[in-house]
Amino acid sequence: MSDMNEQWRLITRPDGEARADHFEVQDSEKPTPGDNEVLVRNIYLFIPPSMRLWMNEKESYFPAQQLGEVMMGITLGVVEESNSPDLEVGTYVNGMGGWQNWFVSQPEQLQPVSPHPDIPLETYRTVLDVQGLTAYQGITEICKPEAGKTLVVTAAAGCVGSLACQIGKIMGAKVIGIAGSAEKCKWLTSECGIDAAIDYKSENISERLDALVPEGIDMIYENVGGTIMDSLLDRINDHARIALCGLISSYNGGGVQSTASLNQIVIKTARLEGFLVRDYMHEYEKVIPILQDWVLSDKLKYKVEVVEGGISATIGAMSNIFHGRNKGVQLVKF
Amino acid sequence: MSDMNEQWRLITRPDGEARADHFEVQDSEKPTPGDNEVLVRNIYLFIPPSMRLWMNEKESYFPAQQLGEVMMGITLGVVEESNSPDLEVGTYVNGMGGWQNWFVSQPEQLQPVSPHPDIPLETYRTVLDVQGLTAYQGITEICKPEAGKTLVVTAAAGCVGSLACQIGKIMGAKVIGIAGSAEKCKWLTSECGIDAAIDYKSENISERLDALVPEGIDMIYENVGGTIMDSLLDRINDHARIALCGLISSYNGGGVQSTASLNQIVIKTARLEGFLVRDYMHEYEKVIPILQDWVLSDKLKYKVEVVEGGISATIGAMSNIFHGRNKGVQLVKF
Repeated sequence: MSDMNEQWRLITRPDGEARADHFEVQDSEKPTPGDNEVLVRNIYLFIPPSMRLWMNEKESYFPAQQLGEVMMGITLGVVEESNSPDLEVGTYVNGMGGWQNWFVSQPEQLQPVSPHPDIPLETYRTVLDVQGLTAYQGITEICKPEAGKTLVVTAAAGCVGSLACQIGKIMGAKVIGIAGSAEKCKWLTSECGIDAAIDYKSENISERLDALVPEGIDMIYENVGGTIMDSLLDRINDHARIALCGLISSYNGGGVQSTASLNQIVIKTARLEGFLVRDYMHEYEKVIPILQDWVLSDKLKYKVEVVEGGISATIGAMSNIFHGRNKGVQLVKF
Repeated sequence: MSDMNEQWRLITRPDGEARADHFEVQDSEKPTPGDNEVLVRNIYLFIPPSMRLWMNEKESYFPAQQLGEVMMGITLGVVEESNSPDLEVGTYVNGMGGWQNWFVSQPEQLQPVSPHPDIPLETYRTVLDVQGLTAYQGITEICKPEAGKTLVVTAAAGCVGSLACQIGKIMGAKVIGIAGSAEKCKWLTSECGIDAAIDYKSENISERLDALVPEGIDMIYENVGGTIMDSLLDRINDHARIALCGLISSYNGGGVQSTASLNQIVIKTARLEGFLVRDYMHEYEKVIPILQDWVLSDKLKYKVEVVEGGISATIGAMSNIFHGRNKGVQLVKF
């Protein structure tokens, strides 16, 4: 790697999928940290499904990405220079490092990471990070699983989805996952140990649900929205609890999302609760060690796919997620 | 009134509005109560906006009305014959008396009513009954008003809506109502004392909301759905609480209801909670006296419109509600 800082700036907002020509690529000087600042070299950029949503003009859970600015990004990096007594050179840190090789930050905007020697580093920007916290809090605080109750998880083979499935299972629920290929479904049932999985691309969801959950659905961990969500809402039981964590089916369309089954919320006196992990960051220090123990004892399975090729590989990684071509949670290695 | 029991039986399910030809009218013998039963003469039939929904094949919050059976109806009547030590002749009772002059019931399926001498009898099947309980519980248990927070109520001039507005106001919220005529809006602001009202038929809702609630919306008491609900969801604040009490805009269309703003629930981490008064019937004895005190002290205003003309006037009363032509909550006098 040269000492030039490759930076990707969003210059036009995508209508559909993001493409390279929505960005301007610049090589800048490597920045220099000031007093009480550190220089971080980005190692991994995490690609959440919602990243596309950040590019819209309307704010999402982050303020809208400004045109002409370096594209926002969730990164894991290493401290290369430090003018702060709080962060030593060589410390791994999670931060909002953006689509660039280096960035300067104040220590309080970074989360130090102490990886366990038996767990790969990238796990600490995916499973053992906000993704794991999102799954854990959504399941425990909103779905509230009970033994014998039925939980359906959409985008179940995704990072958050597969963790939500397994945490639901650990807590005693009957768990059905909905995912986008026979291979993903097989992984969910044979590796992750959930009760059943439905391949929405090749199977009739309504027929499969009728067969798998004749007792109705008590909890939904919803990542997708659209017609699949309607199929689920049509089968909820009284007092169903729905954690609305994302609506990936809408992210390439400006974030507008419909449901045709809203009346089910009324007549089943259900609760549909929007959920962002930012409201639970105060639980980070408590929950990550719980998840790390489950990873070490093999109770939580996961697939992380590291995409090589530097920043320019990010566009392809986003497209992979949108089309369901990814083999696991996507990280781009810088 | 003769001693013949006029009964209206649903024989075909309406597509749109209900008409008289969806019913078969029969004159039967006045029924005779058996052991531990009473004979009740219906005096008032209450016409909730959701009555149309009961006529669909799909169950709503009641089991679906069966074809060929006497149409379900929420009635206030008087005990005319009693074979039960628990209910004396002359007692007023609320019950599910149906579209007929008399019915026989066991006492435990009836709710005795002891009207206050200063309050008209019909109030006890509207404001001081499940309608009042619906407004009170939805506001206190789901919206949870706080001083200075903003509450928007849709169908605000309806019975439940106008009570929800006033209860929100009593509890310190800034209250905006949305209703279907300038006259209704004037009643809400000048009589009921809420902060502002929007006439959705003649005003631009988005512009009015921008002017009235630049601070955003913290609570919604939602009775309507559709595009008005989307306008409200587009303006919610973080952690907004939405009591979803009904979706009157969908009731003539088979109960299907859409929203295009579901993503707002995620990014504002809002809670959308379906609500049926049946879950709160255990609070009836506690809440009705509170509401009765507010009625007696003039803190709760309401308009009840008694439609004369017997059972056959019910169809017109339902149509009045759907088209917003009613001057208050509708009751048909038998």
